[in-house]
Amino acid sequence: MSGCEGLSYRDAGVDLEAAGRAKERLRELVARTRDADTLSEMGLFGGLYAVPEGVASPVLVSSADGVGTKLKVAFRAGRHDTVGHDLVNHCVDDILCQGARPLFFLDYLATGAMEEGVVEEVVGGVAQGCLENRCALLGGETAEMPGFYAQDEYDLAGFVVGLVERDRILDGSTVGPGDLLVALASSGLHTNGYTLARTIVFERMGLGVDDRFPGTDETVGEALLRVHRSYLAALTPALDDGRIHALAHVTGGGIPGNLPRALPDGLGAVVDLSTWEAPPIFRTLQEAGGVSEEEMLRVFNMGVGMIAVLTAERAESLVEELKGRDQEAWILGRIEEGEGVRFVGGEA
Amino acid sequence: MSGCEGLSYRDAGVDLEAAGRAKERLRELVARTRDADTLSEMGLFGGLYAVPEGVASPVLVSSADGVGTKLKVAFRAGRHDTVGHDLVNHCVDDILCQGARPLFFLDYLATGAMEEGVVEEVVGGVAQGCLENRCALLGGETAEMPGFYAQDEYDLAGFVVGLVERDRILDGSTVGPGDLLVALASSGLHTNGYTLARTIVFERMGLGVDDRFPGTDETVGEALLRVHRSYLAALTPALDDGRIHALAHVTGGGIPGNLPRALPDGLGAVVDLSTWEAPPIFRTLQEAGGVSEEEMLRVFNMGVGMIAVLTAERAESLVEELKGRDQEAWILGRIEEGEGVRFVGGEA
Repeated sequence: MSGCEGLSYRDAGVDLEAAGRAKERLRELVARTRDADTLSEMGLFGGLYAVPEGVASPVLVSSADGVGTKLKVAFRAGRHDTVGHDLVNHCVDDILCQGARPLFFLDYLATGAMEEGVVEEVVGGVAQGCLENRCALLGGETAEMPGFYAQDEYDLAGFVVGLVERDRILDGSTVGPGDLLVALASSGLHTNGYTLARTIVFERMGLGVDDRFPGTDETVGEALLRVHRSYLAALTPALDDGRIHALAHVTGGGIPGNLPRALPDGLGAVVDLSTWEAPPIFRTLQEAGGVSEEEMLRVFNMGVGMIAVLTAERAESLVEELKGRDQEAWILGRIEEGEGVRFVGGEA
Repeated sequence: MSGCEGLSYRDAGVDLEAAGRAKERLRELVARTRDADTLSEMGLFGGLYAVPEGVASPVLVSSADGVGTKLKVAFRAGRHDTVGHDLVNHCVDDILCQGARPLFFLDYLATGAMEEGVVEEVVGGVAQGCLENRCALLGGETAEMPGFYAQDEYDLAGFVVGLVERDRILDGSTVGPGDLLVALASSGLHTNGYTLARTIVFERMGLGVDDRFPGTDETVGEALLRVHRSYLAALTPALDDGRIHALAHVTGGGIPGNLPRALPDGLGAVVDLSTWEAPPIFRTLQEAGGVSEEEMLRVFNMGVGMIAVLTAERAESLVEELKGRDQEAWILGRIEEGEGVRFVGGEA
């Protein structure tokens, strides 16, 4: 091969030293999320976390998720410190539905080219989410994949592991007819419906990320990047004393796609559309996109991020308790014999 | 918005019903990996796994990883049933380095458009890896991200959780000067160095995936897609009886980047390059790419997938034991006072 210039990994697009520097900074961010059960620092082949003591029959609850095309909004806005927080909150809300509290989290960040500042912003958002939810950021993978992702683009996925006592698992078995549904307000679109929302906002409406979002005091970027809310803190007291019969995290598929997942066979739900007004962002998307009410309810959370199922008396008191904790909440409907979700009080 | 055609999620590129059908088929694959501690089926918000009983002080060990640009080879070859297996084996080898055996696995598969057959092939590979390593495929996320990934392309990441007794954690503390290094042969490139390897093979050498890989009896696709080897079964007896002082999984960074991670401060390693011949695939890449020996050792595993550290006597017997289990192995070098890796017996 004389006369042929030698290739190194850097020539082929991978800069291992820059990766090393970025990892060093991530190590500091991660250290802030450690707790007493976190036995390892970053850099080991695997992260170590002691199973907490004093739990009679510990069950691990785990969920994997991505941020989805909400990332595209972050790329447009050049704002990368919120999507990691979205991811952690989404995963934490998922395992909350089984009654689990998070222990630790790992992230997977894949980039086209190692943008040092961006990686820090993204993982900083993940660490912020871990701090909010009191879980350790135990490790993760930052993969440089040249020729795979576009310049300045990336994908972000995460994995959470939580713990629940075996006899406190929320499996829907205590749900009964007459139980009420308590809606917990979302902060915005959370992490679902962004493919449709982006088409409407950027193509149909022709807006840019710095334009004002109609009907709000926010820019398009701010409105669409609002962080997915974590319901961990709001629901912890009610989970601790066993009041809650079931929880449904309203993600892709909306209320009709997610509420039945939390209910046992033979029981369905009545959701009263007259009990709340969907926030202006959803109505603007609906009007501008000419989207049917039924489709809106399947694609977006429409202002309902989490639904709790409790006895009638406890549901009323939970609403008051949540309001006192600055979590907007209301009685959304009730459980009945049957299956699926039946909407009343509106056109869907 | 009169006169404006209504948008649905399907118009915007997301087909929720096709996604539902694919998920149904995945459910069957996943069911095959369940064990007695797997408490949930797929479809819940989070997967449930009981902490195994009878472990005095259980510590969870977790690792997240991707397949990296080896995926690009799978795309070229149109073969999607191996990369998931790569991913599981890679993750399992990572936590093995702390002495942990895997409990469960979750995957994250992001695609541009839902290719139904491809998704099945990919997740089928993940399930195969889980079966080989006796861990449950507890859940995962299959994300359709239109406009994000190219047609027929995807990214795949995974996350493993394993368990080790606290007093059996491999933390390097028992490694001492004079301990020997046992090399366990790799099956090929495993999952590292593919950005450089692809540049050399497809650009420099101008080969296609169906061409014969020079110096081998395999096609380029076969040679480059050989599955990352799991060392779980080969090393389980030695881990069970506590013979092993440390394990280093040779991934990105090669032997010099990974062996020191398994050693305590104050100790380094001598690696004797004359103890083995790198397999032909590595020498072909080196010659065709004009890559220095030093660079080869930092980018590729060069035929060494895992390194075990044991006392001299136990190292010799482990080599014999591994050979009897069809795992090629040899004495690679030794531990000495110092730091890092010192190569002898060659030019690096």
